Amino acid sequence: FSMTPSGLTALFRESLVISDPDFQSEDLNFLSRSERYDAAVKKSAQMILKLREYGISDPEEIYCYKSCVHRGRSEPLDLHLGMFLPTLLNQASPEQMETFFIPAWNLEIIGTYAQTEMGHGTHLRGLETTATYDPATQEFVMNSPTITSIKWWPGGLGKTSNYAIVLAQLHTQGKCHGLQAFIVPLRSMNTHIPLPGVVVGDIGPKFGFDEVDNGYLKLENVRIPRDHMLMKYAKVEADGTYVKPPSAKLTYGTMVFIRSMIVGEAGHALAKSCTIAIRYSSVRHQSEIRPGSAEPQIMDYQTQQYKLFPLLATAYAYKFVGQYMNQVYHRITGDISQGDFSELPELHALSAGLKAFTTWTASAGIEVCRMACGGHGYSRCSALPDIYVTFVPTCTYEGENTVMMLQTARFLIKSYRQASAGHQLSGIVSYLNESERRLQPQSVSSRPTVVNVNDLASLVEAYKLRAAKLVEMAAKSIQQELQKRVSQEDAWNNSAIDLVRASDAHCHYVVVKLFAAKLGEIGDTGLHSVLSTLALLYALQGIQQHSGDFLQTGLLSVPQLSQVSQRLKELLAQLRPNAVALVDAFDYRDEMLNSVLGRYDGNVYEHMFEWARRSPLNKTEVHESYHKYLKPLQANL
Amino acid sequence: FSMTPSGLTALFRESLVISDPDFQSEDLNFLSRSERYDAAVKKSAQMILKLREYGISDPEEIYCYKSCVHRGRSEPLDLHLGMFLPTLLNQASPEQMETFFIPAWNLEIIGTYAQTEMGHGTHLRGLETTATYDPATQEFVMNSPTITSIKWWPGGLGKTSNYAIVLAQLHTQGKCHGLQAFIVPLRSMNTHIPLPGVVVGDIGPKFGFDEVDNGYLKLENVRIPRDHMLMKYAKVEADGTYVKPPSAKLTYGTMVFIRSMIVGEAGHALAKSCTIAIRYSSVRHQSEIRPGSAEPQIMDYQTQQYKLFPLLATAYAYKFVGQYMNQVYHRITGDISQGDFSELPELHALSAGLKAFTTWTASAGIEVCRMACGGHGYSRCSALPDIYVTFVPTCTYEGENTVMMLQTARFLIKSYRQASAGHQLSGIVSYLNESERRLQPQSVSSRPTVVNVNDLASLVEAYKLRAAKLVEMAAKSIQQELQKRVSQEDAWNNSAIDLVRASDAHCHYVVVKLFAAKLGEIGDTGLHSVLSTLALLYALQGIQQHSGDFLQTGLLSVPQLSQVSQRLKELLAQLRPNAVALVDAFDYRDEMLNSVLGRYDGNVYEHMFEWARRSPLNKTEVHESYHKYLKPLQANL
Repeated sequence: FSMTPSGLTALFRESLVISDPDFQSEDLNFLSRSERYDAAVKKSAQMILKLREYGISDPEEIYCYKSCVHRGRSEPLDLHLGMFLPTLLNQASPEQMETFFIPAWNLEIIGTYAQTEMGHGTHLRGLETTATYDPATQEFVMNSPTITSIKWWPGGLGKTSNYAIVLAQLHTQGKCHGLQAFIVPLRSMNTHIPLPGVVVGDIGPKFGFDEVDNGYLKLENVRIPRDHMLMKYAKVEADGTYVKPPSAKLTYGTMVFIRSMIVGEAGHALAKSCTIAIRYSSVRHQSEIRPGSAEPQIMDYQTQQYKLFPLLATAYAYKFVGQYMNQVYHRITGDISQGDFSELPELHALSAGLKAFTTWTASAGIEVCRMACGGHGYSRCSALPDIYVTFVPTCTYEGENTVMMLQTARFLIKSYRQASAGHQLSGIVSYLNESERRLQPQSVSSRPTVVNVNDLASLVEAYKLRAAKLVEMAAKSIQQELQKRVSQEDAWNNSAIDLVRASDAHCHYVVVKLFAAKLGEIGDTGLHSVLSTLALLYALQGIQQHSGDFLQTGLLSVPQLSQVSQRLKELLAQLRPNAVALVDAFDYRDEMLNSVLGRYDGNVYEHMFEWARRSPLNKTEVHESYHKYLKPLQANL
Repeated sequence: FSMTPSGLTALFRESLVISDPDFQSEDLNFLSRSERYDAAVKKSAQMILKLREYGISDPEEIYCYKSCVHRGRSEPLDLHLGMFLPTLLNQASPEQMETFFIPAWNLEIIGTYAQTEMGHGTHLRGLETTATYDPATQEFVMNSPTITSIKWWPGGLGKTSNYAIVLAQLHTQGKCHGLQAFIVPLRSMNTHIPLPGVVVGDIGPKFGFDEVDNGYLKLENVRIPRDHMLMKYAKVEADGTYVKPPSAKLTYGTMVFIRSMIVGEAGHALAKSCTIAIRYSSVRHQSEIRPGSAEPQIMDYQTQQYKLFPLLATAYAYKFVGQYMNQVYHRITGDISQGDFSELPELHALSAGLKAFTTWTASAGIEVCRMACGGHGYSRCSALPDIYVTFVPTCTYEGENTVMMLQTARFLIKSYRQASAGHQLSGIVSYLNESERRLQPQSVSSRPTVVNVNDLASLVEAYKLRAAKLVEMAAKSIQQELQKRVSQEDAWNNSAIDLVRASDAHCHYVVVKLFAAKLGEIGDTGLHSVLSTLALLYALQGIQQHSGDFLQTGLLSVPQLSQVSQRLKELLAQLRPNAVALVDAFDYRDEMLNSVLGRYDGNVYEHMFEWARRSPLNKTEVHESYHKYLKPLQANL
């Protein structure tokens, strides 16, 4: 399904939710964690009823409605809607669908997806939970054999779910057949009390995600019937015979889809943060540029522009990249369903690297936006602390970022080697072809540079050549390690810094290239002009940040680097008058942004005062701690 | 007072507090904000009693005891102890001391220091609160004339304090005489109810600082007697005549002191984070380097080493810099009290820049450590979220970091101009002397580079020359702007990016230089060897991160940059066996670290499970939201 609904639908949905009294709640910042969880369950339950009432059943529409109800936050039913139901759809046999789907659709079964264990995350093969088939009773015996095998982190597992799809190592007829998915009842359908052998609970408070009961699950000889293993592909027969699935590549698609969604989310999180920081920078006056004159808007300081405008450009860039990946995904999903997996490796590699590249930058960028708001950015009324803690786990989940970068690097090195062996590469890595590489400048002295710092196409080319050079350097590092007679694996590990750097350069190239390509789609002259400025700013700031790479690879000369600095300053000044319009264009309603600093009307201070007065500590004029501790202390001294 | 107590005292103090049943509390992560505030007031009250009981009155000892009781967190009485009492000591007249000090010492008066306003932070002259002298009654009439003038942020102001020292613009005899400090009663000494005209409360939840009631204060024609203005220096006589203070430089010292403390805190926060991440990286096993063999410790991955070891080196560096600044401060405090302010501008400039430089790096570094712990870093049981939110406001308070960098830049540019005019500079900026600058390489082609990447002294020299070059570039940028006939102020603002970059390079040079100098003090061969490795790693990683600067200024050649990369990898491998010992050497007790991941015994998983089971959501097997929302929903579908 697509994540980009038509503007009209989105508008309609937002109004629907925002005007709905059932979805109003006290400011979440004023609630305890248990209250926040409670409020989220309440909203989710209301939401399910409304979805039925309005007849919303399209997954895309459900997703949008949900993110509007919960203002972009995760919620206790996320994994039920986003993983439990889809996994049933994809991996359950027809009989299993009949047994489980309707109860799950009607929320008699509330499910989650239990994969990660306390001791095992990214490396799936390391999971320890076991499902041992007992042919005598035709049951699987589920166990958490060690402390590290306890399932840990699944959302909704702690208190909400009464079922889970559990990933476990299948043992049958004395052999282990690797990971399979099992439907495991966790709690009584009547009382919600955990079933015998099921030790389940909440994993405790986190940096954010206060609404979600991320949980633990320890299974102690829990027996489930044979037909509770998801059997659309792999099977275990009554006598315990294991039947292999036809292909292992089918789960690739979902990963690619989720990671490309995260790229869009990176743009989204950064766009929200920029909206808040740029609007507030136009409200806030501070210090003086010229002595005696009025305090200027802090947006007029070059340093403030230098903090925020490149991030604004980045937000636009990531939104475009997210859209692009979504389109590619949908295009090749058709191919995949026809059994054509040819484009999948490239997309898989791209989605891994871009997920890491964009989430790292966006996370750091949110904090830059927050600190650009000075002290008030630290208040929860700014919404920026919340945006940060909600977004930053994307650096870790769905594949830890460094691991993702190395996955992309694996594809790049493989491609490089193919090209070196004379194969002609196509697609995004075609720049690694021998013929292209021979055209690259080798160093400052050997060849004059050709980059025009005012021409975006020329900069895209520079990013491409940088990526090619860094992939080559990483490949050569591996080569050198191998010459020291270390194993392939150690050579890889000993070159990992270079490999991550190569992936990073590759991703950066892709983003700049897609941003430039997007400009071609824009007909409106004014819009084209301002977006071109943003794209140029994005490209030039990346060059300045990585100037060492561009100098080292001979793509830029030292005088050109000074030109880049100069040009950057001009672009900042050029963007200044359009900055607020460019964030307004993201079109976040105040109710969705939920930030006192980022209000559309700029009426920041009155609302900050009003917000503070509602703080729970202000419910009484005198806090009880005064009577309990301070008053007696005064008497004692 | 000094911040480095003898090891023995520190050890004694820690044992005292950790074994004291009065200072035990439930894990703060499990409490609501109001409960955390309550627990903090309770501990602070106990602490005051114990300080009296043990006869601890030395400010240094109080500070250390306090940070042990509150585990390094801020607490409601911080500003009473750290600002209210010291300000009385420094600025109250003898008569005022008699009236206010003993009640404050005995906590009948609980005071805070109210400077920042909702609309005004770093720029003190912009403060709007007024104190208008009324000779008829010999009173000051205190007012918050606008919404932006409401005092905002002072710790302990919201609920705890019954007095505040309020910074306000003094108006008398029809003239404004700028900021003065006034002692303002806020709440009844008997009932703690706010006094008439005093609107006071908590500013609401923040990213962190849950224990502190940062507050707001709106003054509506609050009358205080004439003798409530702090009158040790400036005075207002009975008829309203204003008497100027003798010197304005006296408050400089405190700022320098607090900023140099923050530098040490940056080392401290980073050291704690590295301790957690490096210990956990030796406990955690993940994936495989060689197929089929056991999962290695994640510390064995080059990328993990590259994330953590440079931060470990940085933690050591900042601790040394903090110690150095503290020593310098104490050395010149003697001079200041004798009226010799000659070294103050340099120290003031240095403390501003280093505060910004170290807090930015440390804040980002804490998050790198957290994410290096994977998913579990996101759990509050890791302690890393807490370390981050507690430390990161140092980037904003006591002078916003960018403003701080520009203050240092102002000193650098002034020094550069003096040197250019033929004056001979001394001290840390002597590298800006003309004679020195003429020795610098101008570009790759004109002069061979002389840096030896294996020699720390040579690297210190390279950092110095880089700083000199970047200061020169910033000065030239201002010059070029002036040639465009813009004002001095606009030229400064239009060069602000270059100025910050120059300050950054200056601070980086100082840190590398001080780290190298520290090695000279270390006699033990083994210790000297491992710290030399850390210092070299610190210097080389900085060069790699800023390779553009070093190439641009001709200080390094392209082949040397490859040498730097290669050498860095070797240093990581070399540090690997000592990594855990190097964090153990920071000597944080488990009770102070309070991190399940960072436990000294490495027994992480058992304790994570035990911690999670104590989560408030696990107090009941079935959360009430099930009965309230989910059960009825199931019945409705």
